[in-house]
Amino acid sequence: MRLVTYRENTLAAARLGAIVDDLVVDLEKFGIEVGIDLPSDMLDFIDLGPNAVAVTSQLFIKYEQNWPVNVVLPLSNVTLLAPIPRPKKNIFGIGLNYVEHVAESSKSLDTSAALPTEPVIFSKPPTTVIGPGDAVEHNEAITQQLDWEVELAAIIGTRAKAVSKEDALSYVFGYSIMIDMSARDCRRAGQWIYSKGQDTFAPFGPCIVTADEISDPHVLNLGLKVNGVSKQESNTQHMLFKVDTLIADISSGMTLEPGDIIATGTPEGVGAGRNPQEWLWPGDVIEAYVESIGELRNPVVAVGKEPRRGRV
Amino acid sequence: MRLVTYRENTLAAARLGAIVDDLVVDLEKFGIEVGIDLPSDMLDFIDLGPNAVAVTSQLFIKYEQNWPVNVVLPLSNVTLLAPIPRPKKNIFGIGLNYVEHVAESSKSLDTSAALPTEPVIFSKPPTTVIGPGDAVEHNEAITQQLDWEVELAAIIGTRAKAVSKEDALSYVFGYSIMIDMSARDCRRAGQWIYSKGQDTFAPFGPCIVTADEISDPHVLNLGLKVNGVSKQESNTQHMLFKVDTLIADISSGMTLEPGDIIATGTPEGVGAGRNPQEWLWPGDVIEAYVESIGELRNPVVAVGKEPRRGRV
Repeated sequence: MRLVTYRENTLAAARLGAIVDDLVVDLEKFGIEVGIDLPSDMLDFIDLGPNAVAVTSQLFIKYEQNWPVNVVLPLSNVTLLAPIPRPKKNIFGIGLNYVEHVAESSKSLDTSAALPTEPVIFSKPPTTVIGPGDAVEHNEAITQQLDWEVELAAIIGTRAKAVSKEDALSYVFGYSIMIDMSARDCRRAGQWIYSKGQDTFAPFGPCIVTADEISDPHVLNLGLKVNGVSKQESNTQHMLFKVDTLIADISSGMTLEPGDIIATGTPEGVGAGRNPQEWLWPGDVIEAYVESIGELRNPVVAVGKEPRRGRV
Repeated sequence: MRLVTYRENTLAAARLGAIVDDLVVDLEKFGIEVGIDLPSDMLDFIDLGPNAVAVTSQLFIKYEQNWPVNVVLPLSNVTLLAPIPRPKKNIFGIGLNYVEHVAESSKSLDTSAALPTEPVIFSKPPTTVIGPGDAVEHNEAITQQLDWEVELAAIIGTRAKAVSKEDALSYVFGYSIMIDMSARDCRRAGQWIYSKGQDTFAPFGPCIVTADEISDPHVLNLGLKVNGVSKQESNTQHMLFKVDTLIADISSGMTLEPGDIIATGTPEGVGAGRNPQEWLWPGDVIEAYVESIGELRNPVVAVGKEPRRGRV
């Protein structure tokens, strides 16, 4: 299933839906029509456990040629929000997690020192999350080095503590796209949260593709364009620590809970790694994609009143 | 007010109370008796805004010689939980934030390089929080360098974005104690979350003292003992970045929300800074205090099955 959180119009409440072709099926309304109890919120649906996805998918097959009335809307008539508009729990990010990106860096830096031997974990506050089309804020009082990072996001479905690598993927509810926005000039004594944790710094969506539809998350092309020009182009096969290893590793010390998000790191091609370096400015448009999931497009807009200190 | 989250017995639900002398006043029940609507949960009470504290405090004065029946319990009959047992939002920590600790370090290290010019911000997941008396888990498969850090915690009461230093303290709901447990051998490429973010690594409590009762948070003695032996002993006047500066700084990029917690950093005397270094082991007991707030006591217990690799 391709699950979304959507709004019928700007005044309507956010609701849980599934994209089928050019339609959005409202899950709660669908459930009422076919006699099962389905929620109107993504986190509540995740909390139902993996069986809910299987049951709902089966019923979709039965009804997809003949949807009950008032259950479907044209996709073009709705606004998509972030699949989880306000995560209640953790957003973990992984740094330096693509072999080719480390390899690229190694051409000018010390190779072996640059290759992490354990996942480099950081976090982003829930307030970073925005949805498809929402504005990434460029606050020139704070940063002149706003950068992009396309990432495959894994959404946890089941509470995970000290799980084995072998079992780890069974704890994944689904996959999505997250752009891990980073203000490179806001790193502090090595800690990344202020650099990567500012409001609007986690565009997320457009949907969560449930794990049953992505049998292998490590064969997916992913990329990112700025103003239509390709900047990142890679494949999740180049991840240094794969999704199963990340879940086993994080859960060795920190309990992962349903709805937690792991942004699994970015491949080469970020602005900071280019020669000359490139940064995002108000008016720019970021388009990220991950194969089998979709495309996520976000404009950059100015906030704050301070004059720009200089443009690189 | 000295607000707590308590349980009457192990099967009872967690409830919101206030400590008055040797009693716990149940806020929801008190509200019913005196004709105002008060919640049974700390986050709900914080969401009511600062006026709720003022109104409730006034009513306490009126009733404190003659509490309505069934509203109070002997403090000795209840179990205190963390004041916010499961934070919904952020726990921010501040590194290297006591001048004397930086000064102590500077005797063997480069002084000026060691003094941060901006707050060093990190985060701890909600799953780190435990209450008074709860066990800090020592997982010897992961760490042989478990360390203590007593800290004054500021709890945010009102949504704060880009607030001035002058206004910042008005956004504080109250103050508490947090022990920022740190597995020093779990730092990774500089990022602290795996080191400081493991389950049970944020003992929190015993109460939240509302901000109206702490006119100046920068004159408070604080300290920590291990097995009855004093290890840390300082005063919040030695903070490098004070609470108002921290709130102004964090909120410049990241919205602070009601219930968010800022652990404001630790003074000298941590195990890693001692000569020889000292670490915590199963069976040890940590006792932290902050003047005007109280004492927080937590045992260290073993988890995990791997044999200990060595004891320093």
